[in-house]
Amino acid sequence: MTTQQLHEQILQKKSFLCVGLDPDLTKIPQHLLETEDPIFEFNKAIIDATHDLTVGYKPNTAFFEAYGIKGWMSLQKTINYINENYPDIFTIADAKRGDIGNTSSMYAKAFFEDLNFDSVTVAPYMGKDSIEPFLAFENKHTIMLALTSNEGAFDFQTLDTGGKELYKKVLETSKTWKNSGNLMYVVGATKAEYFAEIRKIVPDSFLLVPGIGAQGGSLSEVCKYGMNDKVGLLVNSARAIIYASKGTDFAEKAREEALKVQQEMAEIIDSKS
Amino acid sequence: MTTQQLHEQILQKKSFLCVGLDPDLTKIPQHLLETEDPIFEFNKAIIDATHDLTVGYKPNTAFFEAYGIKGWMSLQKTINYINENYPDIFTIADAKRGDIGNTSSMYAKAFFEDLNFDSVTVAPYMGKDSIEPFLAFENKHTIMLALTSNEGAFDFQTLDTGGKELYKKVLETSKTWKNSGNLMYVVGATKAEYFAEIRKIVPDSFLLVPGIGAQGGSLSEVCKYGMNDKVGLLVNSARAIIYASKGTDFAEKAREEALKVQQEMAEIIDSKS
Repeated sequence: MTTQQLHEQILQKKSFLCVGLDPDLTKIPQHLLETEDPIFEFNKAIIDATHDLTVGYKPNTAFFEAYGIKGWMSLQKTINYINENYPDIFTIADAKRGDIGNTSSMYAKAFFEDLNFDSVTVAPYMGKDSIEPFLAFENKHTIMLALTSNEGAFDFQTLDTGGKELYKKVLETSKTWKNSGNLMYVVGATKAEYFAEIRKIVPDSFLLVPGIGAQGGSLSEVCKYGMNDKVGLLVNSARAIIYASKGTDFAEKAREEALKVQQEMAEIIDSKS
Repeated sequence: MTTQQLHEQILQKKSFLCVGLDPDLTKIPQHLLETEDPIFEFNKAIIDATHDLTVGYKPNTAFFEAYGIKGWMSLQKTINYINENYPDIFTIADAKRGDIGNTSSMYAKAFFEDLNFDSVTVAPYMGKDSIEPFLAFENKHTIMLALTSNEGAFDFQTLDTGGKELYKKVLETSKTWKNSGNLMYVVGATKAEYFAEIRKIVPDSFLLVPGIGAQGGSLSEVCKYGMNDKVGLLVNSARAIIYASKGTDFAEKAREEALKVQQEMAEIIDSKS
């Protein structure tokens, strides 16, 4: 999917919501545990109930890997299900990978070719040659951590590196890399005031924004500082939507929560146009 | 495995070699492609041929994930094979993970519980709460990236953060985290002169050292600056050993290469005692 197509989807659905799929067997409705693949059944129900309200799904690979081979199979079934049934959805493998060049190439192959995700999240610590192998894939997107939404973001990301915080240096440097047009960035919603600064460095890039909902970020604040003229935001919500109910009505309740966010987004999009 | 037991293994085998398992179907001997699980068969042959010369094996998860479910099954078979047949071997999942707390907990569960590795590599960008969930596991080890062996290491890791390079700040800060005694660090062998500086900050920690062999680092230089009185080094070599031959003699040739490194290590250990 191109960013142009993603933008069209956003306008059509009046939504820039991305639903995070973090399936945890201790949190999903207990009646699903009787099925052969509870994780896939959970994801499938959430997807079927919310696909018209969201432009993206973001399976978090950790929540699949924790269940070993069975988990990896659930991940494959989940991405296949989305690609086959809802081909207009933008898919994100939230994997936060990054390694030396030949290894990053293998990760890129895993997520872009084998699993056929539209995008994957990566970590910047190892620099240029750890990210460029991902960027080499046409019409695939590499979403690099810039400023994350957790407490530990302030351990290193905001350190002063010669008059400039590390996350800004990361943003600036990444723009010089080959095929940097395939980059998007993770920017946490818990620090809305930072978005203005970030937009000075990457005015046109899509930003994937976690931290709305369970982590406490405000949607209107994020949009105020972070939106550009192509919207340029994918706002992720996981727990607040997927765990809205632990009962047999979990999919219905997930839809209700997604709808609330989508309606708020529609108002924001309408007010800008 | 405790670090004390690891130290004992090093003295017993006169080796601090770790063999990197980076199985690539385009590089492994082609006759193995006829077997049901070429990646496992390759690893098994390498392990059987080198286990008495090495104290550790480091499967690189990217090279398994690239083959999807089949690859993940090969990874599981490989770690099970090592744990069942060579329980004294220190195992490293080279995964370079790291995410917000609840997600890092899932990764820790994947590698420490489900797969039963002794250790896993992690990336520091997201800070304290992204690493502490790994550190909570007793007798398991979390090997954090400090200074890597690739070109991109100089993009961010060596940036000056208030009079101190970022990798030094990462090392220092990590010492304040809960259960920091379970930390080891990745330090690339291509920059031996840095080891003296690093040892001032983490005199007692084990350092996992990639970059010997194919990446061009020197063993004697690394030992000169990086060894402590408990050796304190795990030197990784992958391509130079596992791809020493593409013929049916690949395991034998891998042993020959591993033996060369082990003999050099034995001399260094003997010269210090």
